[in-house]
Amino acid sequence: MTPLFDKVVIIGVGQIGASIGLNLVGRRTAREVIGVGRSAANLRQAVKTRAIHKAVEARRIAPLLAGLGLDDLVILATPVTGIVEYLTRITRKPLVIDVGSTKGTIVKAARARRIRFVGCHPIAGTEKGGAAAGDRNLFRGRICVVTPVSGGSARDVKKIRSLWTGLGAKVVAMEARRHDRLFAAVSHLPHVAAYALTAAVGRTIRFPRDSQFIFSGLKGTTRIAASPSDMWRDIFLDNRSYLLSGINRLLRELHHLRSLMVRGQGGALLRYLEKAGKLRRGFP
Amino acid sequence: MTPLFDKVVIIGVGQIGASIGLNLVGRRTAREVIGVGRSAANLRQAVKTRAIHKAVEARRIAPLLAGLGLDDLVILATPVTGIVEYLTRITRKPLVIDVGSTKGTIVKAARARRIRFVGCHPIAGTEKGGAAAGDRNLFRGRICVVTPVSGGSARDVKKIRSLWTGLGAKVVAMEARRHDRLFAAVSHLPHVAAYALTAAVGRTIRFPRDSQFIFSGLKGTTRIAASPSDMWRDIFLDNRSYLLSGINRLLRELHHLRSLMVRGQGGALLRYLEKAGKLRRGFP
Repeated sequence: MTPLFDKVVIIGVGQIGASIGLNLVGRRTAREVIGVGRSAANLRQAVKTRAIHKAVEARRIAPLLAGLGLDDLVILATPVTGIVEYLTRITRKPLVIDVGSTKGTIVKAARARRIRFVGCHPIAGTEKGGAAAGDRNLFRGRICVVTPVSGGSARDVKKIRSLWTGLGAKVVAMEARRHDRLFAAVSHLPHVAAYALTAAVGRTIRFPRDSQFIFSGLKGTTRIAASPSDMWRDIFLDNRSYLLSGINRLLRELHHLRSLMVRGQGGALLRYLEKAGKLRRGFP
Repeated sequence: MTPLFDKVVIIGVGQIGASIGLNLVGRRTAREVIGVGRSAANLRQAVKTRAIHKAVEARRIAPLLAGLGLDDLVILATPVTGIVEYLTRITRKPLVIDVGSTKGTIVKAARARRIRFVGCHPIAGTEKGGAAAGDRNLFRGRICVVTPVSGGSARDVKKIRSLWTGLGAKVVAMEARRHDRLFAAVSHLPHVAAYALTAAVGRTIRFPRDSQFIFSGLKGTTRIAASPSDMWRDIFLDNRSYLLSGINRLLRELHHLRSLMVRGQGGALLRYLEKAGKLRRGFP
């Protein structure tokens, strides 16, 4: 099989970046895979597991970017702030994608720079971070949202679709604004709830005294609060307009539940729980 | 092995009641296991799976209770309201336990009636309900909190401890008030959060259009909202004094997170997420 790309530069070799790299190197989808990052230890780990062929430190990236050509690909796999920053440093030659969890700001920044860009959001990844958490099967059976930039080349979009289907993902095209509104509800708000719940519970229980009383219900509702903090700080700030209305909605629900309890309205409380329970049992 | 009990009456043959019954019948811990409930279909199911030897309809329970002796055991396994109600109908002869998720009101009601009572809260059970969800290994390796009533007999407590350890559980003795305060934080508040989050998300996404975008993060944070509604209505109302301060704490955390986002305070937001993340990664 002819490689899809000549050089691929993965900027940010965390769990997602490393998982893509493991596939590119293992399947020879690219002639050369170069990882860029700030942590030398993490880059060494990525070379060791063959997630990348070689590593370049972030501060030495300029000549690497300047030398990229039309058959090369840059994958921006840092937290959102880093993606937006790197978009300003890339020339118009290579094809560029990102894997960020928000799309509006990123797609807008790429459009302003008129680079060859396809926004991507692979819905994969666990609460673990770093190249060591890379997994060749991370994208298998998962959805990858792709937000083509208006005016972009159809051939570029097709190449990126092949990249993701080659990784086992199902590609869904979506406009950036719809993506951000949808993901505020199905992903970002649950993360806010998990962080807030963890903090609230942390004010009542004590470690290690109460560790034996942390059961599956609490574990499940808070698991995603163990996700990488810097990644989620960026997502919360970048998608805050949609997320804030989600938080307001959650606050209204909690106030309503509280008032049903305060007033002892057992009938209305039961109907509320039944309705939410029915909704939840309908989840796939 | 001599049976621990002569007759055991299980009132409420849901997942917990049926799981206890399966063990009592299977291991012959009791000479006879009788299930009491309102749903004839559910009771038939329990007889079929041998969770009980025979069934008695709830409205025909009076002669059964009147005939119980000193070697018999009554297990109250209905939602909390039902437990408190049944406590008023039981004579002083049989030993009585409950398996409710709150303890304060129940222990107080039992003490007022001066019956032979040991409060129990086995931390087991999934979001599924009914006798069909019974599982002989449900209690294996799980904690069962036991709240002895002051003035109760040490021999009775010992018998109940044997019952639970025989089911594979680890018994932890705890005062009722401490139980309710602790479980408001580690169990009841997470349930409130899951119900509220499900309702909030349900106002944004649509079925079946958006079903493919329900990922593991949202599933995990809301899974327990599929729990039996009547059981949780009772828990929320019964433990509301501790639970309301938990809800207030959660509201404060959400307001704080929202204000960090509104003001764009990236540094403080990162520290907040790091602190909660560290707490969560410390969970067992």
